[in-house]
Amino acid sequence: MPPTDRIRDHAGQGATTVAAHRTRRRLRADRARQLADLLRRQLLTDAYPDGTLPHEDALATDYGASRNTVREALDLLRAEGLVARQPGVGTVVVARKYPHGLDRLMGLAETLHEHGRVTNEVRTMGPVPAPAPVAERLQVAPASDVLYIERLRRLNAIPLSLDLTYLPLDIGSALLGADLENTDVFRLLESVTGRSLGHAEITLEAVTADAHSAAVLEAPRGAAVLMLERLTHLADGRPVDLEFIRFRGDRIAMSGLLRRSL
Amino acid sequence: MPPTDRIRDHAGQGATTVAAHRTRRRLRADRARQLADLLRRQLLTDAYPDGTLPHEDALATDYGASRNTVREALDLLRAEGLVARQPGVGTVVVARKYPHGLDRLMGLAETLHEHGRVTNEVRTMGPVPAPAPVAERLQVAPASDVLYIERLRRLNAIPLSLDLTYLPLDIGSALLGADLENTDVFRLLESVTGRSLGHAEITLEAVTADAHSAAVLEAPRGAAVLMLERLTHLADGRPVDLEFIRFRGDRIAMSGLLRRSL
Repeated sequence: MPPTDRIRDHAGQGATTVAAHRTRRRLRADRARQLADLLRRQLLTDAYPDGTLPHEDALATDYGASRNTVREALDLLRAEGLVARQPGVGTVVVARKYPHGLDRLMGLAETLHEHGRVTNEVRTMGPVPAPAPVAERLQVAPASDVLYIERLRRLNAIPLSLDLTYLPLDIGSALLGADLENTDVFRLLESVTGRSLGHAEITLEAVTADAHSAAVLEAPRGAAVLMLERLTHLADGRPVDLEFIRFRGDRIAMSGLLRRSL
Repeated sequence: MPPTDRIRDHAGQGATTVAAHRTRRRLRADRARQLADLLRRQLLTDAYPDGTLPHEDALATDYGASRNTVREALDLLRAEGLVARQPGVGTVVVARKYPHGLDRLMGLAETLHEHGRVTNEVRTMGPVPAPAPVAERLQVAPASDVLYIERLRRLNAIPLSLDLTYLPLDIGSALLGADLENTDVFRLLESVTGRSLGHAEITLEAVTADAHSAAVLEAPRGAAVLMLERLTHLADGRPVDLEFIRFRGDRIAMSGLLRRSL
């Protein structure tokens, strides 16, 4: 074989090897994701009540996966801050995601009452002139004052969410002396108006936390945040509460039920 | 004044200045977040139909904010990949978030039909032995085969989501020859079973994309992903479709309505 052919041949083999290697790596990454999703579900449903995941070999057998795939799947969950490797123990659960209902309009303390005590650190509270989109949604005159409240909300002292809240001033001013540290705004609204809440329009997004929001939530820089925008109305239809809520992605999962026909 | 006092005094002043500086920075970051949330809402509702945001001075006036706060708020939206600064033009909208309904159970093509054409790249498709949590949820015998499908879903050729799907084999095998590239699995399930879907249990989380998922979705490394887990049942209650869906956080917003009383 002339030398050039040998070189070409060699290069061809090299390319095949690189391609094969890439395919293998892609397949392993795909399988790792697939397994990580199943394990994430197990974590969400508290399938490991003692806080320890089965040994890698057991996971490999249970899920028909290779040891490498299992390790890569656990790496993914570790990067999400859900598990950690503990020498001599194995893989342990380090973060718990709390279930937040998507079926019924509820305040945070209300929805999490089984899981512990919600406390609110009021970072800012006071009247501000309503920016146009706020005035429009709360149906108040543009630039008229609304009550702005900023709260860092914790469950059992662990930061869960950062909430920015706008309330019409006639209702909001009644909240100025209220125990906001220990009470959901929803409950306060129902108590000061003597009426019950009706419905809320919500929008959910996944957003990367900016450095400052991450610091406030004590989350790693660049952590994913579940962003909830919610406009709540009284039962008579009046909009009374516009909120922008950043939930720590590693601490909250929203669950609900959808129907095919309404 | 003895020199030590002077030093103490000086240090005291220094500390005050540092603290004051920190407070100012914190306040500005808080105000920037507050403004960014209002602008994000405007972006979501297409408030700038020509694709250009008002000038920084106009935003400062409209929102009663300083130029620095406006700049910092725009920086936050730029970091989220929603806007970009274009020399000579100003701040332009670069990403559009598509609305995904949270009120009714719908497939992606169905929910986005007003916004364009959904196409699906089938990355993997074939029978796999059902891992225990899959078998349990789909109510099939453990380790019996289920159909596994992995699809990269695009709207108008732009990647939106990566979907991992498990179907019981008796129903799934009818999908093997179907036009999965152009049809929602929901529609195919209704067509092959001759029955309509009933309800789905869903869980939504915000997750940081791992490197490989980000690459598949053509998203920046570390991008936030809106993760939807969904178990869909036929109208008779039989579970027929378990999906793990990663939506690009910068391209999808989920909207719905919650009621206070059920």
